[in-house]
Amino acid sequence: MSQKNNNSQLTKLADLGEFEVINHITKDFVIQNDSTIEGIGDDAAVLDFNNKQVVVSSDMLVEGIHFNLSYMPLKHLGYKSVVANLSDIYSMNANCTQITVNIAVSNRFSLESLDELYFGINAACKKYGVDLVGGDTTSSNKGLIISITAIGSVDSKSVVKRSGAKINDLIVLSGDIGSAYLGLQVLEREKEVFKVNPRNQPDLSKYSYIIQRQLKPEARKDVIGFFESVKLTPTSMIDVSDGLSSEIMHICLHSKVGCDIYEDKIPVSDELMSSCEEFNLNSTTVALSGGEDYELLFTINQEDYDKIKNSNDFTVIGHITDLKKGNNLITKAQQSIPITSQGWKSF
Amino acid sequence: MSQKNNNSQLTKLADLGEFEVINHITKDFVIQNDSTIEGIGDDAAVLDFNNKQVVVSSDMLVEGIHFNLSYMPLKHLGYKSVVANLSDIYSMNANCTQITVNIAVSNRFSLESLDELYFGINAACKKYGVDLVGGDTTSSNKGLIISITAIGSVDSKSVVKRSGAKINDLIVLSGDIGSAYLGLQVLEREKEVFKVNPRNQPDLSKYSYIIQRQLKPEARKDVIGFFESVKLTPTSMIDVSDGLSSEIMHICLHSKVGCDIYEDKIPVSDELMSSCEEFNLNSTTVALSGGEDYELLFTINQEDYDKIKNSNDFTVIGHITDLKKGNNLITKAQQSIPITSQGWKSF
Repeated sequence: MSQKNNNSQLTKLADLGEFEVINHITKDFVIQNDSTIEGIGDDAAVLDFNNKQVVVSSDMLVEGIHFNLSYMPLKHLGYKSVVANLSDIYSMNANCTQITVNIAVSNRFSLESLDELYFGINAACKKYGVDLVGGDTTSSNKGLIISITAIGSVDSKSVVKRSGAKINDLIVLSGDIGSAYLGLQVLEREKEVFKVNPRNQPDLSKYSYIIQRQLKPEARKDVIGFFESVKLTPTSMIDVSDGLSSEIMHICLHSKVGCDIYEDKIPVSDELMSSCEEFNLNSTTVALSGGEDYELLFTINQEDYDKIKNSNDFTVIGHITDLKKGNNLITKAQQSIPITSQGWKSF
Repeated sequence: MSQKNNNSQLTKLADLGEFEVINHITKDFVIQNDSTIEGIGDDAAVLDFNNKQVVVSSDMLVEGIHFNLSYMPLKHLGYKSVVANLSDIYSMNANCTQITVNIAVSNRFSLESLDELYFGINAACKKYGVDLVGGDTTSSNKGLIISITAIGSVDSKSVVKRSGAKINDLIVLSGDIGSAYLGLQVLEREKEVFKVNPRNQPDLSKYSYIIQRQLKPEARKDVIGFFESVKLTPTSMIDVSDGLSSEIMHICLHSKVGCDIYEDKIPVSDELMSSCEEFNLNSTTVALSGGEDYELLFTINQEDYDKIKNSNDFTVIGHITDLKKGNNLITKAQQSIPITSQGWKSF
């Protein structure tokens, strides 16, 4: 059997990046339905039913790969799993209306632990006004696997894809980034401390913001509502799930443009700055490469700047340039260095 | 942590059936969107976007639980995974238009084995005219997990649910049933033989139909097309994935009716009959309890009988009765015995 991988000519998945694997396995698929407007390649697919654009996104989380139950309470995991999918729908400028949740759990799980998980899923459904409309619950050989599909809708003229950024557009970020990654570092460290001294009661209060960003992130539905209220349609948008550098590269690749991002403009929290110092990490590296912040990264026409300039929630971090100029970070020392993707690699 | 299940007061999932677990975890969820017409409880959810009914179904398959790669070639597995989801959409009398596929694979998988899997997925997409529009590919700690969401559409007046069966309706089955289960028994037996004598080359030709029903089942899109061509809308419908007894009980439960099913009417293949003899199995038990046939079980008003009577593909196997009469099998000896669910239990 080929999947036993004992033939040295076979290609190990670990040798490829996630995007390479996806590109490889999907290259032979051909779109056959008029209702499929956008297939694979954006945060979500776009379908058309009676001129209503229906947006669909799917995501899978595996215990030991994407989450660790030793510091991720199940209700938070349920909440975060939903948020991660909603974020993909919002990043299309769509409203999320339904989700399906498939889970596989090992027999060691109790009904009460499933209750905790679904309590978190339900809390997210209530908060974001989303209906759980289906799913499959089955057993796994090992651990917990969660697979969620989110469905939303948007008027056809309002869909925002990765591919619409134009030269001179402003690059804007909601909220701040990097904190979710640093929160994970704190939790990982405390887990190691706990192994050595289980009686140790750590004081994590000075990390409360960055831990919350890791354990209970929110999706930016409010930003989509804000866009509607000020009649702003971004030219392109993506959510920051894999890290800023990876996301801006997606926008530039799909839009066939370049970008200049200004290091001193990247919004980070005070807690991120102080914790980076403690962990001896470079805050810019963390902000560029850390994932799971679920903020929205979008581009707008310069004429629309007035619509966002009075909000503290948005930061202009750069602008779109010509494709030939590439993707660059302008450092605090005014040096221009190429941005490389250091986003999440699943294999 | 509660999921460690070391508290004796916790409820083991293994003590509950799949439906009990699903009912339990979903009981607190409230529908919030006007676009959600039907949530959990049927083969697929029904959504409404601009008066077009959009149908969504999700399914998860776990290696070692739902399939065994030692006798299930990956391309067949990919094909069957899609077919199982399409079948849920067709059972709503809807056409399937899009799927998303999430997979988690261990690092032992090669790119070539993923290719095989997606070759099968693509073959099903092509055959059924379905677009792959998204999905997530990630690593697992152990084995292969496939999670598929299928999306279809149907005019609102044509949606067929489990809940519409009325007293005196005829109960009809497409094709024949039980063979997929028996095909699995043959494959399991050959696997044991192979362990003892790997040089043994079994002659499986006399099992070709039942093995094909297990390894490469088809979903009954053609039946949906037939309904349209003769202007027949069943009063209720479900696909036979978990076994006839389980499926007819779902229809009766949701429709608040009873049923009489006639043992001598249940359609089975000649190969099933001869193989049952060889395996010393009762063919009625296999037909009632075996799953994965993906045939359609539906009810029609007696006035519609003329529309199906000339097709060899449909068999009237019984009729709907009053709720108080319960669900009964009328045996060949004219005895009436209660039907009990012996369908698939995932835990």
